[in-house]
Amino acid sequence: MKVPDAKGVYVIAPTPFHADGRIDESSIDRMCDFFAKAGVDGMTVLGQLGEAPKMSHEESVGIVKRVMSRVKFPVVVGVSAPGFAAMRALTQDVMSLGASGVMIAPLNTLRTDDSIVQYYKQASDAIGADVPFVIQDYPLTFSVQMTPAVIRRIHTENASCWFLKHEDWPGLDKISQLKAWEKDGSMRKLPILVGNNALFLDFEMERGADGANTGYCFPDMLVDVVRLSREGRRDEAHDLFDAHLPLVRYEQQPGPGLAVRKYVLMRRGIIASDTLRKPGAQLSAVAKAEVDYLLSRVARRDPRAKL
Amino acid sequence: MKVPDAKGVYVIAPTPFHADGRIDESSIDRMCDFFAKAGVDGMTVLGQLGEAPKMSHEESVGIVKRVMSRVKFPVVVGVSAPGFAAMRALTQDVMSLGASGVMIAPLNTLRTDDSIVQYYKQASDAIGADVPFVIQDYPLTFSVQMTPAVIRRIHTENASCWFLKHEDWPGLDKISQLKAWEKDGSMRKLPILVGNNALFLDFEMERGADGANTGYCFPDMLVDVVRLSREGRRDEAHDLFDAHLPLVRYEQQPGPGLAVRKYVLMRRGIIASDTLRKPGAQLSAVAKAEVDYLLSRVARRDPRAKL
Amino acid sequence: MKVPDAKGVYVIAPTPFHADGRIDESSIDRMCDFFAKAGVDGMTVLGQLGEAPKMSHEESVGIVKRVMSRVKFPVVVGVSAPGFAAMRALTQDVMSLGASGVMIAPLNTLRTDDSIVQYYKQASDAIGADVPFVIQDYPLTFSVQMTPAVIRRIHTENASCWFLKHEDWPGLDKISQLKAWEKDGSMRKLPILVGNNALFLDFEMERGADGANTGYCFPDMLVDVVRLSREGRRDEAHDLFDAHLPLVRYEQQPGPGLAVRKYVLMRRGIIASDTLRKPGAQLSAVAKAEVDYLLSRVARRDPRAKL
Amino acid sequence: MKVPDAKGVYVIAPTPFHADGRIDESSIDRMCDFFAKAGVDGMTVLGQLGEAPKMSHEESVGIVKRVMSRVKFPVVVGVSAPGFAAMRALTQDVMSLGASGVMIAPLNTLRTDDSIVQYYKQASDAIGADVPFVIQDYPLTFSVQMTPAVIRRIHTENASCWFLKHEDWPGLDKISQLKAWEKDGSMRKLPILVGNNALFLDFEMERGADGANTGYCFPDMLVDVVRLSREGRRDEAHDLFDAHLPLVRYEQQPGPGLAVRKYVLMRRGIIASDTLRKPGAQLSAVAKAEVDYLLSRVARRDPRAKL
Repeated sequence: MKVPDAKGVYVIAPTPFHADGRIDESSIDRMCDFFAKAGVDGMTVLGQLGEAPKMSHEESVGIVKRVMSRVKFPVVVGVSAPGFAAMRALTQDVMSLGASGVMIAPLNTLRTDDSIVQYYKQASDAIGADVPFVIQDYPLTFSVQMTPAVIRRIHTENASCWFLKHEDWPGLDKISQLKAWEKDGSMRKLPILVGNNALFLDFEMERGADGANTGYCFPDMLVDVVRLSREGRRDEAHDLFDAHLPLVRYEQQPGPGLAVRKYVLMRRGIIASDTLRKPGAQLSAVAKAEVDYLLSRVARRDPRAKL
Repeated sequence: MKVPDAKGVYVIAPTPFHADGRIDESSIDRMCDFFAKAGVDGMTVLGQLGEAPKMSHEESVGIVKRVMSRVKFPVVVGVSAPGFAAMRALTQDVMSLGASGVMIAPLNTLRTDDSIVQYYKQASDAIGADVPFVIQDYPLTFSVQMTPAVIRRIHTENASCWFLKHEDWPGLDKISQLKAWEKDGSMRKLPILVGNNALFLDFEMERGADGANTGYCFPDMLVDVVRLSREGRRDEAHDLFDAHLPLVRYEQQPGPGLAVRKYVLMRRGIIASDTLRKPGAQLSAVAKAEVDYLLSRVARRDPRAKL
Repeated sequence: MKVPDAKGVYVIAPTPFHADGRIDESSIDRMCDFFAKAGVDGMTVLGQLGEAPKMSHEESVGIVKRVMSRVKFPVVVGVSAPGFAAMRALTQDVMSLGASGVMIAPLNTLRTDDSIVQYYKQASDAIGADVPFVIQDYPLTFSVQMTPAVIRRIHTENASCWFLKHEDWPGLDKISQLKAWEKDGSMRKLPILVGNNALFLDFEMERGADGANTGYCFPDMLVDVVRLSREGRRDEAHDLFDAHLPLVRYEQQPGPGLAVRKYVLMRRGIIASDTLRKPGAQLSAVAKAEVDYLLSRVARRDPRAKL
Repeated sequence: MKVPDAKGVYVIAPTPFHADGRIDESSIDRMCDFFAKAGVDGMTVLGQLGEAPKMSHEESVGIVKRVMSRVKFPVVVGVSAPGFAAMRALTQDVMSLGASGVMIAPLNTLRTDDSIVQYYKQASDAIGADVPFVIQDYPLTFSVQMTPAVIRRIHTENASCWFLKHEDWPGLDKISQLKAWEKDGSMRKLPILVGNNALFLDFEMERGADGANTGYCFPDMLVDVVRLSREGRRDEAHDLFDAHLPLVRYEQQPGPGLAVRKYVLMRRGIIASDTLRKPGAQLSAVAKAEVDYLLSRVARRDPRAKL
C-alpha cells in the first residue's frame, strides 16, 4: 500500500461540550470552520486532549461523523484502547466514515524495545494492514520510551505506518537522527509532525520536522510558524513563536493545560463552553486571570490575541 | 441503599475462545455449569483474567447475556475502563441484563490518597449510586497502592460499595486492619474476598477474609479450602491448599498464568480450547509438560487432579 | 528548635569538573564569587543538577568544604540517598563544616500519603531533629506525588522542616493552597522557593512563593525577577522573564538541560569546562548553535546575554 | 580476562544487627560458619536483602572485611549505587579485601534496551574492566525489564561479565532462551543462578539454571534441591522443594519477607536478633505465629525445620 504524505499543521482538536457534559455539535462545526480558515492541513480528533477516553464508542463515532461532514482536509482519529477489539471496532467505523487514518498510542505497560515493536505490529494486524496509522510517541504521558531505532523498526515493518506524532521531551536529537536515516536511505520517508503543545516547535522545524500535530489555543500561530520556518525566515518564525511562548508554556501544563486551551477558544468565540468532562481540571478564577494577563501580553506582539 | 453481603467463592471466570479467537458460547455454558457444580457462591466475568480489555463492547454484553441465562448465583461484571463514559455504558447494559454489581479497578496513573478516593466517587457517580461496585485492589497489576485508610474512605463515602477484591501483596496485615475496624465499629461491614490467584488463601482466611474472588484451574479446591477454614479445620485446609500450592504458584505467574489456567480447564474438559486473544502468552511445549508434571504430583494428594 | 526563614534566590549550584571529570576547585571559587555578586541569598549544592549521585562521599564533603570557605550566605546540601546511613553520614560531615541545612528528596518508590510522611519523619530522626531540612517536591524526577496536605503534615510533624523546594508541575494551585493555610493559621510559616528551572517563576511569585531555589545559567535574572515581583512591578518582572523564557525552556529539558547550563556558564567565563560526569548528556554541535542563537536573541532584551 | 565459572548455591546473606541497629559481627561469624557447613558454593553480601542501601560506606567495608576473614568460598559484593563514583569506591575497597566480584543492579529509571546495555558498559568502565560483575535482573524490584537479547549484549560486550542473578518473574522461558544461545554458540557461557527467593527453583534448575543465588531461611534446602536436580533425581528434588514451598512463598513477600527470614534464622540460632534497620517491616505477633505454624508443617517432611 502507499500511504499519503503529511506536512504542515494537523491540528489536535478538543471535543467541545455543553456545560452539562453533552457533546456540543454546533461548536464542533464552528471549530472545523475556524481550523479551515486558519489554514491547517489536517486535523486529529479523539486524541488525549480530545478527551478520547471519556467518550463512549457511540459518542466517538458521532463526533467523527459530524467532523467529516464539515471538513475537506484529512482527518486522523485517535483509536488508542486497552485492547485490540475496541481499537478495531472504532477504526472500522471511522474509516468507513471517511477518516484518512488513525492514531495509536502504546499501552503504558510496554517496556522493552521488542514489546513496543510487536505491539504496533499486532495493532496493525487488528485494524487492518490497509489502514494508515500514526505512531504517538509521548513518553511523558504514556511512560513508554521509543528510541529512534524502535521507531524505524515500526515504520519499516508496517507499510501502513503513516507519520510520527513526535512529542518526546527532550526530542530534538531524535528528529535529527530519524531525518538522517531518511536522508541516507536507511529508512523510507517518515513524516514527523510535532506535538507536546508546540513547546519546541521553533527548533523542531529547524531539525527537520515536517510540521506540527498539536493543539494550542492559537493554531493559526502554529500555521504561521511552520510556514515561516519552511520558508527559511528564521528570525520571523522565532519572533512570532516567542511572542506566544509564555502562553504556550502555560497551556502545556498537564491537567490544567486543556482547560486553558478551551477557555481561550471560548473567549475567541470558537466553542461555546470551556467545560471538561470528569475527571478534568477546572480553572480557578486566579488561573483565568493569569491567562487573561498572558493574552494581553501576547496581544502586544500578535494582534490575534486581542480578545 | 442496602448492598447484599458477599462470602464464599466468587470465581473469576476466564473467557473461552475458539481457536480462531471468536467467543465460544458452548464453553461458556459448560464453564457455568461446572462452577455451579463446584459450589461457588458467585462469579465475576470480564476481569483482567477474563481478558476484558480485549473485548469490544458488543462482545462484553454478549458474554454477560450468555452467562446470565445460565447461572443462578450473583454475577459481578468488570467494567474498568480508561474513562467513565465507557464504564457507564457497559454498566447500564449489564445491570439491565441482571448482573448483581460491577468491579472497578483504579486508573493506573492514580497516585495520591485523595485522587484514589475521588476516582471511586466519580466512578460511582458515573455508573449510578444504586449500582453495587467492587473495589479491585491489585497494586501488582495496576500500580496503585491503597492503604487500609483509603479503602475505608471509599467504603464509607459510597453506600453502594459492595466488597473488596483484595489482591495486595503482601496483604495479610491489610486484612487484619480492615477487619479490626469493622469489629470496632469504625467502618461498616466490608466483605473481603481475596484474589491474586489464591497464593495466600490459607492465611488470608485466617486473618478474617470472607472468601475468595479469584480464578485457579481448580475452583473446587478454593471452595473446599474456604469451607474447611471457616469450619475451623485448620490443618485440613492447609493440607489441601499445600497439595495444590506448587501449581497455584505456577499459575500465578503474570502473563503465562492465564494460559496455564486455560490449558488445565481444557484438559479437564470444561472449555474446548486454551486460546488466548492477542496480546497473550502461549504455553511452550516444555511449559505444558511442566504443568502436566505438576498435575500428576497434585493428583497424589487430591484425586481431582487425575486427568 | 527554631529554623531560620528563607526567601529570595537560593541558587542551585552545578558541580564544575575538569575535562577529565575531576572536580574543578578553581571553578567552584569563581562560581561562588559570581553567585555572591549576582546577589543570591543562599545556595544549594549537591542537588540533582549538582550531579550529586555521581560523587563519592569524600568528593561530596570536599565540595562543601571548598564552598563553605568561600561564601557568606547560607548553604544547603543535598543529602538524598537510598538509605538513611549514608544520609546521616553526609549530613553530619557537612553540618560540622557549617552548612545551614540539608535537602532531602523522597525515595522514588514511595506511593501512599502515609509512606511519604513517614519517610520524612524517619529521615529527620536519622539525621538529627536539630538539622534543618528542605523538602524537595519534584514529581517529574522522583515519581512521588505530594499533596498540599502531605506537605503540611511533614512540616507540622517536624519542627526542623525548613522550607519547600517546590517543583511540582503543574504547581501553581499548590502554592496558593499552602499559602492560604499559612495565612489562616492552619500551618506555621513554610517558606516556598520554586525550582523546575524557573519555568513558572513569574506566576509562582505572584501566587505567594518566597523566591526561587533553582539553577539557570543566568541566576542574576532570577534575582531580578524575584525582586521586581516582590516590589509589585509586575510588567517589568514579566518583561525580563519573558526575554529569557525561550532559553529557560531550552535549559529545562531533562538530560541535556544541565549541559546547556554548564555550556553557558562556561561561555560566561564562570566555569572552565562544561564537562558532565557519566552518565550525562553531551551537547551536539547543532544544540550548541541553537543555544548560541537563543543567547543572541535574549541579548536583544537583556544585555547580560551578550557573550 | 577470564572470569571464573559459577554454579551451585551462592547464598544471599542478610546483614545481622543488634537490637539497636548496630552491625552484629558475632552473628556474621556464626552465619558464615553455618553457610559453609550447609555446603554453599559462594555467598553474596550487601544485596537488596542484605539491606545494602541502609549501610554507610564504612559499614559496608567493615561487613565485607569480617566476612572475608571467615570464609573460604567466593564472595560477591553488591555495589549498586545511584552513581558510578560510589560504586567505584566500594568496588575498589572490597576487591582489595579479596572479594571475587561485584553485583550491579540497573538504575530503576532505565527504560530502553540501549540505555540498559550502556549502563552496564559505563558501570564496568567505572569499576574497572578487570572486575568480574554479576547482572542482577530483578524487574519486580527495579522496574527494569531486560530481554534475553539485552542480557546477551551485556554479556558479549563485557568480558568481565561473570554470571546472571536471574530473578525475572515469570522467567522460565528466559532461562531456556539464554541456555539455547549458549548451546548453539551464539553467546559464550553465561552461568545463571536464580533468585526471587527460590520460588521457582525446582523448574528453573530443569530449564538449565546453574544454581541459586538467593536467600531463604533454609539455604541448606537450596543446596539439596540444586544437588538433587543436577543428579537428575527429579521427584526427590520436587518433594523436598514442595515441603518448603508454603514457607518459601511466605518469605517471598516483598517487605515482610526479610523479617521472616531473619526471624527463622534467629530461631535456628544463627543470628542473635531479627532486627531490621529502618525503613523495615516488623513481624506482628500473628505473623510470627503463622511462621511458627508453617515451620511445624515443614518439619513433618523435613526434620531440619524442627526448631
